[in-house]
Amino acid sequence: MLKTRLDLDRIRTARGVIDPVFLNTPLFRCEALGRALGCAVDIKLETANPVRSFKARGTELVASRLADQGRAAVVCASAGNLGSALAWSGRRRGLDVTVVASRRAPAAKLDRIRALGATLELVDGDFEAARKRAAGIAQQRGIRLVEDSLDIETCEGAATIGVELARRASSFDVVLIALGGGAMATGVGHVLKALAPGVEVICVQPQGAPAMTRSWHQRRVVTTDSTDTIADGVAGRFPIPAVLDDLLLVADDAVLVQEASIVAGMRMLLEHAGLVVEPSAALGVAAVLEDPARFAGRRVVTIVCGSNVNLDDYHRWVGP
Amino acid sequence: MLKTRLDLDRIRTARGVIDPVFLNTPLFRCEALGRALGCAVDIKLETANPVRSFKARGTELVASRLADQGRAAVVCASAGNLGSALAWSGRRRGLDVTVVASRRAPAAKLDRIRALGATLELVDGDFEAARKRAAGIAQQRGIRLVEDSLDIETCEGAATIGVELARRASSFDVVLIALGGGAMATGVGHVLKALAPGVEVICVQPQGAPAMTRSWHQRRVVTTDSTDTIADGVAGRFPIPAVLDDLLLVADDAVLVQEASIVAGMRMLLEHAGLVVEPSAALGVAAVLEDPARFAGRRVVTIVCGSNVNLDDYHRWVGP
Repeated sequence: MLKTRLDLDRIRTARGVIDPVFLNTPLFRCEALGRALGCAVDIKLETANPVRSFKARGTELVASRLADQGRAAVVCASAGNLGSALAWSGRRRGLDVTVVASRRAPAAKLDRIRALGATLELVDGDFEAARKRAAGIAQQRGIRLVEDSLDIETCEGAATIGVELARRASSFDVVLIALGGGAMATGVGHVLKALAPGVEVICVQPQGAPAMTRSWHQRRVVTTDSTDTIADGVAGRFPIPAVLDDLLLVADDAVLVQEASIVAGMRMLLEHAGLVVEPSAALGVAAVLEDPARFAGRRVVTIVCGSNVNLDDYHRWVGP
Repeated sequence: MLKTRLDLDRIRTARGVIDPVFLNTPLFRCEALGRALGCAVDIKLETANPVRSFKARGTELVASRLADQGRAAVVCASAGNLGSALAWSGRRRGLDVTVVASRRAPAAKLDRIRALGATLELVDGDFEAARKRAAGIAQQRGIRLVEDSLDIETCEGAATIGVELARRASSFDVVLIALGGGAMATGVGHVLKALAPGVEVICVQPQGAPAMTRSWHQRRVVTTDSTDTIADGVAGRFPIPAVLDDLLLVADDAVLVQEASIVAGMRMLLEHAGLVVEPSAALGVAAVLEDPARFAGRRVVTIVCGSNVNLDDYHRWVGP
């Protein structure tokens, strides 16, 4: 038995609560991408849904629980995707949703949060500043604060991806997971270690936002003073101790990749798979690009976790 | 009872034969696209699979039948997507696959056919020239010729999309279907007319390749001397009489759209849904753009049927 905070039965039960539009997402071999990378690559596509990221798997659980409890309001800090997802899940259940985000977050993400009817509050500073402000709002108004990766629903929601992968585990050797706060990595990792322990679980983070990866290697929380990456969705500085504890139990490795590899990964996903993705979603491909020998001839799954990106940023990075 | 060549029981049985990677594709509301178009838009996404189009639903049936019969080889003419799909389905079953295509077909499509191990023969002229050559090869070698839209497997394979749509038919009013040879339109149309007769079935074709649409309106086969459209996947000149007969029974309307609208549709699918699609997949959006009053406030499904496009063509059409 894995001693993480997650529980396989609760994860399976969660699948009955999440709107099916977010479940059973495509998992398919992309031969063109595999040829270019020198390994077999399966894409787990988490962008073909109303919020264009995997985050609603978790917010569906949060919002459903709040509605059951008769609660009326909820607040979260977000780099963007959690906010959109919570806005979507909350609107469906009549919840008053407040999202706090950094003024520097991509306009595409901020626009979608507003369009979904949430109250959006912008703060100066980065995601960590938004976290503080959201906590203040929660305390002041006496409403639920959703903390990504700390709150178990966010991890168990992401873990439902793992359930879908585990069903097909005989067809791959490695799963590459974008690492930010750690909800997806601990969630998917927990399920795979429980149901398919032979699958290698590798977390991937940008060198420009390495706090959780450094923490995993040093087996203690390591923070950073700043972040510098285009992968806005995974750019945290303060790893959460409980999440790190879980990650230490379920991840086989955590690697850092350069910005140039993230951009190259985005370009390859466009050229070989026809997918426009946000930088965080290209971390897996970037990891293969940086260490081809490690993956040569192996069967790799990469989770394409979001596609919310400003198109002009995208074109500037990836080219026409 | 609808008197088409299709049969609902056979279509349901077909779902058990088709590789699940092609089934139960995403169907999701894209609010951003809907806001831009003035109606609610659901996307049925047929591109997140190993061949990036819906065509494998049909070729899975063809190849499975041939394997059951102990046949060793098969040939088809293709604008590109049928060829890739048949190559994929045939390779899995050890079939020797030959694809005949026009030299003018997009390199992206031709490259994928070759990469999947099929023998690719290129002909001068258009798709109709490829059809003739494929028929010649079939006769000469005594092997099965797969004729898109005429062969019932291609229609019943496409019809499995209709089964998936019919389950959610209470959530939409109209389905927009790209119209080429007619396999998708007659297949999806048959199922919807049988299971959800309240849903309006509208076929969309480019003005530059209007043969089937003109035939539908005149209730007799009308051919054209040439085609002139970027929507290479639907550019036929000789409608098949039996397919037209079926289409007359299941389509509520068939409309033509301009090239500029197809490009605008591709651009909107990129901007609002993050999807890179081939021109044929934007026909539904183009139809809404050309007649917004018809769709205003209604709930529309558009089937995004393929994403095999040369990226340099794409950028030239859609812009950076």
